[in-house]
Amino acid sequence: MADPADPIYELYYWPFIPGRGEFVRLALEVAGAPYRDVARLPETEGGGVSAILRLLGQDAAGVPSFAPPVLKWGDLVISHTALILQWLAPRVGLVPADDRSRLAAHQLQLTMTDFLSETHDCHHPIAASLYFEDQKEESKRRSRYFRQERMPKYLNYFERVLRSNGDSGGRHAVGKDTSYVDLSLFQVMAGLDYAFPRALNRLKPKLPLLAALHDRMAALPRLKAYLGSSRRLPFSEHGLFRRYPELDDEI
Amino acid sequence: MADPADPIYELYYWPFIPGRGEFVRLALEVAGAPYRDVARLPETEGGGVSAILRLLGQDAAGVPSFAPPVLKWGDLVISHTALILQWLAPRVGLVPADDRSRLAAHQLQLTMTDFLSETHDCHHPIAASLYFEDQKEESKRRSRYFRQERMPKYLNYFERVLRSNGDSGGRHAVGKDTSYVDLSLFQVMAGLDYAFPRALNRLKPKLPLLAALHDRMAALPRLKAYLGSSRRLPFSEHGLFRRYPELDDEI
Repeated sequence: MADPADPIYELYYWPFIPGRGEFVRLALEVAGAPYRDVARLPETEGGGVSAILRLLGQDAAGVPSFAPPVLKWGDLVISHTALILQWLAPRVGLVPADDRSRLAAHQLQLTMTDFLSETHDCHHPIAASLYFEDQKEESKRRSRYFRQERMPKYLNYFERVLRSNGDSGGRHAVGKDTSYVDLSLFQVMAGLDYAFPRALNRLKPKLPLLAALHDRMAALPRLKAYLGSSRRLPFSEHGLFRRYPELDDEI
Repeated sequence: MADPADPIYELYYWPFIPGRGEFVRLALEVAGAPYRDVARLPETEGGGVSAILRLLGQDAAGVPSFAPPVLKWGDLVISHTALILQWLAPRVGLVPADDRSRLAAHQLQLTMTDFLSETHDCHHPIAASLYFEDQKEESKRRSRYFRQERMPKYLNYFERVLRSNGDSGGRHAVGKDTSYVDLSLFQVMAGLDYAFPRALNRLKPKLPLLAALHDRMAALPRLKAYLGSSRRLPFSEHGLFRRYPELDDEI
């Protein structure tokens, strides 16, 4: 599918965390697309965090980027996870060909973007610049509402999306094949299972299609190989999904 | 530009607040596109909040919508502000024709989406389902960081975007003419001026291009007529931008 003369994809994202960049990585990996994870290269090879900061500081290549992830392809530079996926997916075969499915896919990805932002703010309800320890009480209060209201609302919605996709018998979010939306839903479920295992287990009986989608994606040969490789960064107490037991209480 | 046989645009959004729906309204108004603001019609004419709830409950018309704003055009139903604008703008002449400008426009709109979400959470840092009064202390703490860190970070970024758009001499965010991104930036400045007038005034000396853009947009004949009409809903202590003086302190 790719022309060997094409530039390769260059992803710029914080090298220590899966974070939002992981949604782009999953698409590149499952598509088998050649890419360079620039900030994970050594500084001596033009990598590291300084590669990201250099790119963010450039005004020459069109509109500046606010934050990573940024995707560079030749002299095209685009940022924002959902936009990168919308642009990338048709080139690597991870979205159906018709316009309506593509609109639906992007709409779902944007709803996931909102969900991720709410998830992140569970451990940072006051300021991204403060440590978790300095906003722990607010985090606990916010997380209770997140577990009881927002998490079920979003997850039940995505379950409904799968159920209502008659084309796939509930196996895919859009169309009949694996799309980047399915891969992103996989990552959301994996992240919530890491950060809020108790809350997710309480909700899972009502989420059979999402749970099955997660497992089916994890078994895709390319995803399975990736998950077992050192390219897959582990979840940790940095980034989007964090396991703080006090935020995942009984109720 | 519009074919008279085309369906008209139907916007579904909460009828009491400008909120996120206003970004779509501004594009429709400035384009002079015929549209129906469905939920603002009387219930007896199929309007009101129940029209929104009916639409959100439908699974038939493709992928379900998570939340308003929703735009309906014939049997096409799409939701999420940034997606609606991305789809609508080429049809109503509010984005340049080339692909790169369209990518840039959407990227900027998505960055604005993040900014709006952070702005909203100033008065709802704990839960959207709680009253402001029940999360006022957390709101005050969050708003201080918002005023001191996030507001300047986002606004300086958008000022830089205008400055780096050589095509327009700093008069437009993308391309050489008014786009939906300019209109959205107008609304962001208007909203911040309502909700955080003191903080915005402190920042304004460093935002000459954004301030000029706001004033120039407000003077566009169609926007001026709209702003003076009853179709323009006022800002209030509901919705996205709220004026709570305790959240807009001296520093």
